[in-house]
Amino acid sequence: MEKIENVAIIGLGLLGASLGMALRGRTYRRLGWTRRSEVRSWALENNVIDETRDDIKELLAKADLTILCLPIPRVMEYIETYADCWKPGAMVSDIGSVKEVIVNCGEKFLTPLGVNFVGGHPMAGTENSGPYAAFEKLYVNAEVFVTKTDNTSIEALNHVKEFWESIGTKVVVTALREHDSLVAHTSHISHILALALTEAVLDCDLETLALRYSGCATGFRDTSRITSSSPSMWREIIENNQTAVLEVLKEFGKRYTNLSEIIKNKDYDKLEAEFAKGKKMRDAWMEYKKG
Amino acid sequence: MEKIENVAIIGLGLLGASLGMALRGRTYRRLGWTRRSEVRSWALENNVIDETRDDIKELLAKADLTILCLPIPRVMEYIETYADCWKPGAMVSDIGSVKEVIVNCGEKFLTPLGVNFVGGHPMAGTENSGPYAAFEKLYVNAEVFVTKTDNTSIEALNHVKEFWESIGTKVVVTALREHDSLVAHTSHISHILALALTEAVLDCDLETLALRYSGCATGFRDTSRITSSSPSMWREIIENNQTAVLEVLKEFGKRYTNLSEIIKNKDYDKLEAEFAKGKKMRDAWMEYKKG
Repeated sequence: MEKIENVAIIGLGLLGASLGMALRGRTYRRLGWTRRSEVRSWALENNVIDETRDDIKELLAKADLTILCLPIPRVMEYIETYADCWKPGAMVSDIGSVKEVIVNCGEKFLTPLGVNFVGGHPMAGTENSGPYAAFEKLYVNAEVFVTKTDNTSIEALNHVKEFWESIGTKVVVTALREHDSLVAHTSHISHILALALTEAVLDCDLETLALRYSGCATGFRDTSRITSSSPSMWREIIENNQTAVLEVLKEFGKRYTNLSEIIKNKDYDKLEAEFAKGKKMRDAWMEYKKG
Repeated sequence: MEKIENVAIIGLGLLGASLGMALRGRTYRRLGWTRRSEVRSWALENNVIDETRDDIKELLAKADLTILCLPIPRVMEYIETYADCWKPGAMVSDIGSVKEVIVNCGEKFLTPLGVNFVGGHPMAGTENSGPYAAFEKLYVNAEVFVTKTDNTSIEALNHVKEFWESIGTKVVVTALREHDSLVAHTSHISHILALALTEAVLDCDLETLALRYSGCATGFRDTSRITSSSPSMWREIIENNQTAVLEVLKEFGKRYTNLSEIIKNKDYDKLEAEFAKGKKMRDAWMEYKKG
């Protein structure tokens, strides 16, 4: 395929609808579909997509590139259910937070039909979800992981890369396990921590709770922010990345136990050195992010 | 004392300088002092304070209310060093993040001299520090803890309450231990978590680090934000609140282990229920904060 014309965005939640918005004014024709017909109408009326149909199959048949912007189990379900709707040579990608289970599924059902599956994962999101939480700049400066396996078509990989780069993201090509271990560290673990923190602070009797409400300020607000994310989404992500998540839980546990021991031993010079090391590491990452 | 006229702000870092800014246009005369003379000049030139002196003692002698905006060890050092500078009937308060050690020190050195010490702790701050990080709205909607002990003068307590309320904060009166246990939960523990997370994610070999940099996005940014706070400040806070911090470390550890076990056992329905519970608890707190 020389040039992508029709891009199908399947699923118009936070990520799908924001993708449609980010593509405004670009050369692609945006075909959009989501289960609820009122959201399809909303997306059409608000210049989130250019075209929709009641029947998803009609859109998939037209699509040069399809981005499945769905929860992980739905991505796999749609690949299997609609495998024979895509035309040979078409490209299918997704935005799922884990890649091994999804890409294995994509290659299993699509590769034999001559349809190219290339896994994708933009590091973008907020604690909100749904189409009405979408905004045009969600992907600006985000990093997007695009996966490469022994079966990946290099031509399709390059098309998917260029697609994401066209909306101002930075693409990083990874292998499947490398990706899943990476995001367990950089993202999934934080959701377990934020949850455990929220429980340790707010899961108490009502009298204590009133006082705790007063004592929680911006530090708690930010450290716990992602606790407000979608429970079903995070269940699905961890369910589909258990091995890597357990490894990082262990790694975090080691660090946490070490700091606890330092405090128990009243070795405050060491504690200050750890705080200084952490600050230096995080500040360096922030500098990198600012670019 | 019927009315507070002269308020001395001792220490013009983030909290002290922001306090001076918050008092702009109020009826108090702001006397300000900090170690570095160039910061005293900056504060005077930028309407952060109304008056300063080279000699701190001259300011303390004039002050009806002094707010010690200093690191915890300095608060205690200044109380002891300058105890006989304040006039009898004057009030002294502070902004330290722990209260038991500070208030005990204040009552030990000041009460015998007829000077009223009332502990204070505004729940306000950012990961930045120093005078040039200060801003006028730092305290807006913040909660401020003011301490009450058997030795506290009710008149002084009320003056300190009114002072903080005059700049738009909400005052909560607490006992010393109650306060220190509370903030160990709502604030101190988050700093240990954020640090352990930063280490688990960024303390690795350089090749891995390059990839981790790509994989860290807004979730990591916010969960780890307070890792960028002042290492010496957080060392001092935890050093002076060890008992309560160790209790909360244990409490968090229990929650964390429980979640880890749920994931180990692949009990994902239970995990989703925990995510939902956490979201509900945090969202309710956010609603409370919005007022």
